[in-house]
Amino acid sequence: MAVSESPASLGRVRMLVEPALRRAVSVLSDEIRPSVEYHLGWVDETGARLVGDGGKGIRPALAVLSAEVVGAPAVIGVPGAVAVELVHNFSLIHDDVIDGDTERRHRKTVWSLFGIGAAIVAGDALLTLGQQVLLNPAIALGPSADVDLAAASKAARLLADSTAAMNAGQALDLQFERRRSVSYEECLTMEGGKTGALLSCAAAIGAVFAGADQSSVDALSTFGLQLGLAFQAVDDLLGIWGDPDTTGKPTFADLRQHKKTLPVSAAIAAGGPGAEELMALLADEELSETQVARAAELVESLGGRERATEEARRSMESALRALDDASANPEAAGELRELAHFIVDRQF
Amino acid sequence: MAVSESPASLGRVRMLVEPALRRAVSVLSDEIRPSVEYHLGWVDETGARLVGDGGKGIRPALAVLSAEVVGAPAVIGVPGAVAVELVHNFSLIHDDVIDGDTERRHRKTVWSLFGIGAAIVAGDALLTLGQQVLLNPAIALGPSADVDLAAASKAARLLADSTAAMNAGQALDLQFERRRSVSYEECLTMEGGKTGALLSCAAAIGAVFAGADQSSVDALSTFGLQLGLAFQAVDDLLGIWGDPDTTGKPTFADLRQHKKTLPVSAAIAAGGPGAEELMALLADEELSETQVARAAELVESLGGRERATEEARRSMESALRALDDASANPEAAGELRELAHFIVDRQF
Repeated sequence: MAVSESPASLGRVRMLVEPALRRAVSVLSDEIRPSVEYHLGWVDETGARLVGDGGKGIRPALAVLSAEVVGAPAVIGVPGAVAVELVHNFSLIHDDVIDGDTERRHRKTVWSLFGIGAAIVAGDALLTLGQQVLLNPAIALGPSADVDLAAASKAARLLADSTAAMNAGQALDLQFERRRSVSYEECLTMEGGKTGALLSCAAAIGAVFAGADQSSVDALSTFGLQLGLAFQAVDDLLGIWGDPDTTGKPTFADLRQHKKTLPVSAAIAAGGPGAEELMALLADEELSETQVARAAELVESLGGRERATEEARRSMESALRALDDASANPEAAGELRELAHFIVDRQF
Repeated sequence: MAVSESPASLGRVRMLVEPALRRAVSVLSDEIRPSVEYHLGWVDETGARLVGDGGKGIRPALAVLSAEVVGAPAVIGVPGAVAVELVHNFSLIHDDVIDGDTERRHRKTVWSLFGIGAAIVAGDALLTLGQQVLLNPAIALGPSADVDLAAASKAARLLADSTAAMNAGQALDLQFERRRSVSYEECLTMEGGKTGALLSCAAAIGAVFAGADQSSVDALSTFGLQLGLAFQAVDDLLGIWGDPDTTGKPTFADLRQHKKTLPVSAAIAAGGPGAEELMALLADEELSETQVARAAELVESLGGRERATEEARRSMESALRALDDASANPEAAGELRELAHFIVDRQF
């Protein structure tokens, strides 16, 4: 697959959403806001303002386009866009504590800079703020914002349900670490929760605010979920065979960390002496270079690479098919399709 | 003040709310539910069922009575009761991680038994489930539950706003630990957030579901907030001068832990050499028995004990006065008054 150019929709949505995101974050208390602004890349470790470079804004773009694709103006998607971005960042901040990761995108993580307690509270505050923004859009849009209580209630339920699925995925992932092997289906379930649930929410929440019919909302949810599964399958492939120059990680990075990802669980599911050897390798505390390379070879020869590649392709096809069922606005549908390729088609 | 008998309303509400709470918890994933059931006192460390003894159920009782006091049937208050109990327990689980506490009510805390990662996810899941229950009461009440989207939206906003205030209070408390002194007003703000906000929500959320007018909701919110402030002021007094046989903690417990509570901040606010001596004592890493006793003496002689006692009395009066403004149902108002005395009038 080829590297895609950054789609124009990302820049357009960022212009629309970033002021609303900043307005929402500004309501956090003086004790919480600095760690959140640091995490979002708005300030450095000393609190000095930074220019540019937050995340890619994929979830906000999905949210805004999901309003447009059912025929509503972009602004209808903004509260949802802000909310999913806040909840995404809640999960990153807590995940870093849970995983003990000291760096994210070449910067210290919140807990490693502000302490574990501050990071837990910052995450809690972002999760809560995500709900507040949906139920009271004035927090993001300013005092003139209208509230449709029924739409807000449906959107908040969608976000809460997705967050619950994400939490469940995180708990399952945490449990995987203590297990010798995980089945391919468990791995898919975990990735559907941890990665798919919030992308699914993002891809539908603007349509919910737009008052779209349930079948369009369902189709967009499926689009987002399948997109998430495709993204994660590719991410798992890159985690083993990605070019270190592109990923910024060492070769076979996920195998060094004993991660039970899709290619690994597929290889183990193949069974036989090769699978036994792979499980034994991954159970070792510390792997030598030779062992890491041998593990990668085993995952490939047992068909793990091929199955994960096939999973990515099939999920992407399902995503794009679902999109065909929800396109009142062909232009926005085209932008969603372009965004989907940008998310999934990465070099590996 | 005298110890009150346990009010009948607590038992009545428990009968109504506990099945709904259990139904809600049952939707958590297999990886999350065990730690939550353990935390709630439903199972022991091995997962074996325990009988009885969850918490007192004060927040659920406030929620149900707040529906009744505006003239609605008790069942209207149940989703709110379940939600505030879930969010209360989210905060306990995360607080224990943040404070590094290994025991709560003579049992191991969730993080000390299941690990920090599992405790963070369990808390996140309860916070999320609290929102889900309000937006989709069928989770607590079963599939026949009706949903009034507008009422659910208002209740969810109330809960999210209260949770945000609670998070802010927690962050402020965390910051106090790193400071030499805190002002009396800052201490009140912290306690209003950390303790008052969720009690305020509990005391009004049933009325919101009942569709009560805004002035009744506001009066009940004020009742809950002031009740929380009174409770916390008493708790702070007990934390220093409580009878070890009753509190289960050593004498002067909060001073041993250098906690900057209401009596301490009031004493420091008095200024002069006594306040300087107190601040110096509390800045010491480890206090001897003589130093602890001297600190308690200073807090008392500087008027900290008297001011916190006066604060408790004044807050309780405000709480009961607010209740007079929101009483369509005198019987329920009587039960709320009885509950308020039960919460605040403890031996010290």
